[in-house]
Amino acid sequence: MSGKSFDTEILSVGTELLLGHVTNTDARDISEMLSKIGINVRYHTVVGDNPERLRACVEIAKSRADIIITTGGLGPTCDDLTKQILAEAFDLPLVENKAEREGLYDYIKYSRSFTPNNYAQAMLPEGCTVFHNTCGTAPGCAFEKDGKTVIMIPGPPKECRAMFAQSALPYLQKLSGGQIVSHSLRIFGIGESAVDQMFRDEMDRMRNPSMAPYAKECDCLLQVTAKADTAAEAEEMIRPVMEKAAARLGEYVYGVDVECIEEAVFALMEQNGMTFAAAESCTGGDVARRFTDIPGASAHFLGGAVTYTNEMKAKLLGIDPALIEEKGAVSYEVAYEMAARIREIAGADIGVGVTGLAGPDGDGVHEVGTVFVSMAAKDGVWVRELHLGAQRTRSFIRRMAGNHVYDMMRRYMTGLKVTA
Amino acid sequence: MSGKSFDTEILSVGTELLLGHVTNTDARDISEMLSKIGINVRYHTVVGDNPERLRACVEIAKSRADIIITTGGLGPTCDDLTKQILAEAFDLPLVENKAEREGLYDYIKYSRSFTPNNYAQAMLPEGCTVFHNTCGTAPGCAFEKDGKTVIMIPGPPKECRAMFAQSALPYLQKLSGGQIVSHSLRIFGIGESAVDQMFRDEMDRMRNPSMAPYAKECDCLLQVTAKADTAAEAEEMIRPVMEKAAARLGEYVYGVDVECIEEAVFALMEQNGMTFAAAESCTGGDVARRFTDIPGASAHFLGGAVTYTNEMKAKLLGIDPALIEEKGAVSYEVAYEMAARIREIAGADIGVGVTGLAGPDGDGVHEVGTVFVSMAAKDGVWVRELHLGAQRTRSFIRRMAGNHVYDMMRRYMTGLKVTA
Repeated sequence: MSGKSFDTEILSVGTELLLGHVTNTDARDISEMLSKIGINVRYHTVVGDNPERLRACVEIAKSRADIIITTGGLGPTCDDLTKQILAEAFDLPLVENKAEREGLYDYIKYSRSFTPNNYAQAMLPEGCTVFHNTCGTAPGCAFEKDGKTVIMIPGPPKECRAMFAQSALPYLQKLSGGQIVSHSLRIFGIGESAVDQMFRDEMDRMRNPSMAPYAKECDCLLQVTAKADTAAEAEEMIRPVMEKAAARLGEYVYGVDVECIEEAVFALMEQNGMTFAAAESCTGGDVARRFTDIPGASAHFLGGAVTYTNEMKAKLLGIDPALIEEKGAVSYEVAYEMAARIREIAGADIGVGVTGLAGPDGDGVHEVGTVFVSMAAKDGVWVRELHLGAQRTRSFIRRMAGNHVYDMMRRYMTGLKVTA
Repeated sequence: MSGKSFDTEILSVGTELLLGHVTNTDARDISEMLSKIGINVRYHTVVGDNPERLRACVEIAKSRADIIITTGGLGPTCDDLTKQILAEAFDLPLVENKAEREGLYDYIKYSRSFTPNNYAQAMLPEGCTVFHNTCGTAPGCAFEKDGKTVIMIPGPPKECRAMFAQSALPYLQKLSGGQIVSHSLRIFGIGESAVDQMFRDEMDRMRNPSMAPYAKECDCLLQVTAKADTAAEAEEMIRPVMEKAAARLGEYVYGVDVECIEEAVFALMEQNGMTFAAAESCTGGDVARRFTDIPGASAHFLGGAVTYTNEMKAKLLGIDPALIEEKGAVSYEVAYEMAARIREIAGADIGVGVTGLAGPDGDGVHEVGTVFVSMAAKDGVWVRELHLGAQRTRSFIRRMAGNHVYDMMRRYMTGLKVTA
């Protein structure tokens, strides 16, 4: 960003984080949102509900960051110290915000667990910008003091994500005196180091827009970021770069700005008005669960069968036990039948199947990580044979197999080659 | 711990953490393991693959912690700085460990991506205790210097968890000059604040053993921790406390030292040699997935039907469409049928069903969060009507509904009342 550096520290407050009872998804969610607007997070710190240690962490953050974002500790209990400590550290009084207090009164009067402490949530640093909480009771806030930007966000993940996206991001964009926009090409079928090699020269030359590849657990992305006076100008700078990169990456691009392949499949199903059903063995319901995580899934996902045993493949799907006996449950033929049969039973446009070995046991014939994934549609049935790695974890094998199922579907729906 | 305090800081190294591309599960996993042996984690810090910032973070850790645990940065790439920086900070040379180098040679000679950098993984601080990596290539280590304990662990979560449990925990136990043991009663059906109230007086009085309740996302636990000269003595101190607490909590205790209700159900199924099948609507495959995450699940989970639409309830389970029409998909009657039918189709000892509204849409009759969960066994069919909260997230509703399914099963198998 022009002029000012924006080194950021995210300071998460909560003893439950230090006990390992919860995972710090707030720091991850905020970091991801900040990386999309070109703000560099340099540190995550987690400290407990302890005033002295929190105070000391705030001093360290002041010494090394320009933007300090706190999560947690804004609630009504005696453990909730964040506002007090931050206000003291910046020599600001806490004053009651009338609108927030009225909102709390409305909420609390119907609540059985009212205590006067609840109103403490309406106390905010004098002069701050208030971030109203649309998913909970505690407001967050932002203020500028002593050359620092301080943002305080509630701890509960849903509230944190919502408030940061709705209130903190626009606040920070205004601060940067420009607009930073980024978009990502989401890639499956080649890895981050291959993407890096393809675009290395270009990335080394580019300043604004800039481009960078990132690996995720089972796929990767190429992010293009531009800074301009307005968002519209930044978008215009990004567009040709994205188009050129997408053309080079071709079939490996499964979407733009989607979080995962199943989201891209959902969008394609919305566009094409299609339905599907899933027959799963080793993924044990995970293919279904991933799609049904998406609100509105029921318009496209009709249902599925989790046929964890050979008998269930016969009972629920009507697959001939003799075929399973002859070819084995982990086989091209059984995968083929699973997809074809669930499609027929459900009356869906597409049926998918997964049968394989997630580990730790093999089956005496195939090694762990061998998975057959299949897709049946009106014009044919396709099967991929995967060898995902005998050393891989059960959860990696199940997730990667599911990714291949969704990859087959998105290729089919976009007219690409489904299998090699 | 006697004499020495053991304030611990976990320092996780990796720019991908600061970009929000991965979640810091290492810090959470290590914190959870340490809390079970009574070691207080006071700080988590995340810093990028940057020598200056990492160096500065190590100095801060030295100033405020007795035990410094690093994760990440032990690999063979030029970004992997942890050992260098830690060794410099404690004025120790890095020397090549012969056994590790030989192990790396064996691994690398068959690898296509060999570079001389790979051998850097065998360089370790002089005099350290080596932690061999049973899941990957990079060894970890531990050393004592300048009154500090330093432990370095690889970043990849599977490797981190395994090495910490196998090597770091025993190392730390030895250090404490005693044995700290803890066990947890896992509780479902009452919340952490209720547990806290029940045991408040007792907990305030207890020093060794000590007792504390902790909330998790959908359930809670009561942890009892004891310190003694030997593990056996510590276990003897814990036993009567646990028994007394379990007797007071009664039916709400679903297990001891298990991570989740489904693990407790798995153990009961192993003991009783039982099987089950699941018919799921709003949980979309998650009940099946949770159980099949457990290695060996196939001995007990036969399979299931994800009947996401009304038609699929008829097609896969044979439920009368007129019943669904009359009572609605989200109803006692349909839940009843789902459990009974899947049990019959699968030939399982137990069938379970879930039908409800995970949101964001209601169905015009019930509000979001209304879920009917059911269980069919040889001696009857039970149904619970749940109202999980219209403001709750989709993922909370799905997880909580699944917990109730598993709670019904574990109560049945232990002779407790299944429904109120």
